[in-house]
Amino acid sequence: MAAQFARETGTKGEFTRQTNRFTDRITADGAGGRVPEAGRYRLIVSLACPWAHRAIIVRRLLGLEDAISLGVVDPIRDERGWRFTLDEGDRDPVLGIGFLSEAYLRTDPAYEGRVTVPSLVDTETGTVVTNDYPRITLDLETEWTAHHRPGAPDLYPPHLRPEIDAVAADLFRDVNNGVYRCGFASSQEAYEQAYDALFSRLDVLTERLAGQRYLVGDRITEADVRFFTTLVRFDAVYHNHFKCNRNKLTENPVLWAYARDLFQTPGFGDTVDFDQIKRHYYATHEQLNPSRIVPKGPDLSGWTTPHGREALGA
Amino acid sequence: MAAQFARETGTKGEFTRQTNRFTDRITADGAGGRVPEAGRYRLIVSLACPWAHRAIIVRRLLGLEDAISLGVVDPIRDERGWRFTLDEGDRDPVLGIGFLSEAYLRTDPAYEGRVTVPSLVDTETGTVVTNDYPRITLDLETEWTAHHRPGAPDLYPPHLRPEIDAVAADLFRDVNNGVYRCGFASSQEAYEQAYDALFSRLDVLTERLAGQRYLVGDRITEADVRFFTTLVRFDAVYHNHFKCNRNKLTENPVLWAYARDLFQTPGFGDTVDFDQIKRHYYATHEQLNPSRIVPKGPDLSGWTTPHGREALGA
Repeated sequence: MAAQFARETGTKGEFTRQTNRFTDRITADGAGGRVPEAGRYRLIVSLACPWAHRAIIVRRLLGLEDAISLGVVDPIRDERGWRFTLDEGDRDPVLGIGFLSEAYLRTDPAYEGRVTVPSLVDTETGTVVTNDYPRITLDLETEWTAHHRPGAPDLYPPHLRPEIDAVAADLFRDVNNGVYRCGFASSQEAYEQAYDALFSRLDVLTERLAGQRYLVGDRITEADVRFFTTLVRFDAVYHNHFKCNRNKLTENPVLWAYARDLFQTPGFGDTVDFDQIKRHYYATHEQLNPSRIVPKGPDLSGWTTPHGREALGA
Repeated sequence: MAAQFARETGTKGEFTRQTNRFTDRITADGAGGRVPEAGRYRLIVSLACPWAHRAIIVRRLLGLEDAISLGVVDPIRDERGWRFTLDEGDRDPVLGIGFLSEAYLRTDPAYEGRVTVPSLVDTETGTVVTNDYPRITLDLETEWTAHHRPGAPDLYPPHLRPEIDAVAADLFRDVNNGVYRCGFASSQEAYEQAYDALFSRLDVLTERLAGQRYLVGDRITEADVRFFTTLVRFDAVYHNHFKCNRNKLTENPVLWAYARDLFQTPGFGDTVDFDQIKRHYYATHEQLNPSRIVPKGPDLSGWTTPHGREALGA
């Protein structure tokens, strides 16, 4: 991964995430040539990955489990990328491949970037439709409505979209990707800039969430999903491994209660696998943790304690 | 340092600290050929090092500053070991050497181990009297009494010695050296054993300190000095860098108040240099932190907040 690491590092030592290569869409109107079709598409995820975790949560909240099947890769990624070693015979039972990279190369034989999750794969052709994670969840929410379970929440309601998009943009830059910018910085200066942006943003969000239960409006939205997948990994990984250590999530009463509130909502906590999360980060990034020893902490028992956020309504 | 790292690693990946090479003593009765003599001996320390920090605190508490001078090395140690780059001309002004290793080799030309602080050096000969840190503080307390300031505390009172020794033995094995055994373990198993021993011991000590202000008796003793130098580094370094992350010190109300109580006692907090502590660990152990980037956290402002331990008396 050394060459790839260099490709994603800027001249001042700052981490610059690669763009998503595959951006086809599945839309209700079939504009891109594909329409939602139960059983045809397979969502490939790692339970460790925060970007994939968004799609896992949204699929569950919307009741899309029967329409879109799920393939789960091994949390530990070596130089060959994500592998299907959790499956019998070390192959995904539907796609019949051992490495996710096989689907990438079938789609683009010249592909050289990082192979990423989530990836939505067409089971008929074995090719990747999209690895464009922010688009994947939005499309599950707005284009797959015919397949949603009865009573599924609207995670991206039209009248709230401008506000969700604005919050999500700040979240991405400073928090979701911000923790990676802390961890993958290769200069002290780049690291400190990312650290300052991260904690300044968390302070702003803390103030916002002190008086309201969810990020936007009076209901859970896409914005909360995006914040949650970073927060749930914060103390387990980012605080130590990525040096995001001004304070732990558990030391911020507002955000800690907000995160527990979501964790205790079906679709959130039940999709969290702390063991895979920890093993992924500590065993995959050799440049950050050469020993690959996985920390035994932190104590995670607090996640199921009462959060008291019901008092804020919604 | 790779060869040295291998020399201090056991067959199961466990860290095995080297023994202290120089163990001459300066005693009131002159049994070892040396008696306390104001101005003759120089204490070489790093402000980062917990073993040296013990001697810095004890020297201050006992008012030995005029009797024993202090030399401070650069917190960042490279493959040549501790250096006097904080001094003019990069040389210790009294000993006239640029590296502490020069005094070691003058004392034992065949010396091959790690050069350690604290070291007590004879300024007349330029040789090392002792780098036996547990003995150094005990001798300052019991053999240098003629040079103590008026009203100096008795940090090692005869009637409490058996209890102090017992507590100190547990502290050394599981806590003082225990954090290093976590951080320098080269196998998951060795790490987890050290982690379990560390936090079990901290639980026992928490219970002990819940009802009494200091570790032994009703006064500050050598035992408190030894506990403090590890606790004050816990969140700043050990929690992250050595993976001692079940919880932060700030998350343990009893130990956090106990540590603040000591921190706010003259001789303790005023000898703490968090900047040097952090830079030392993160920039010196390349095998743990290849980027040498120093975390900006944690927030240290809590150290000066009220601790409420006066209510426990003493």
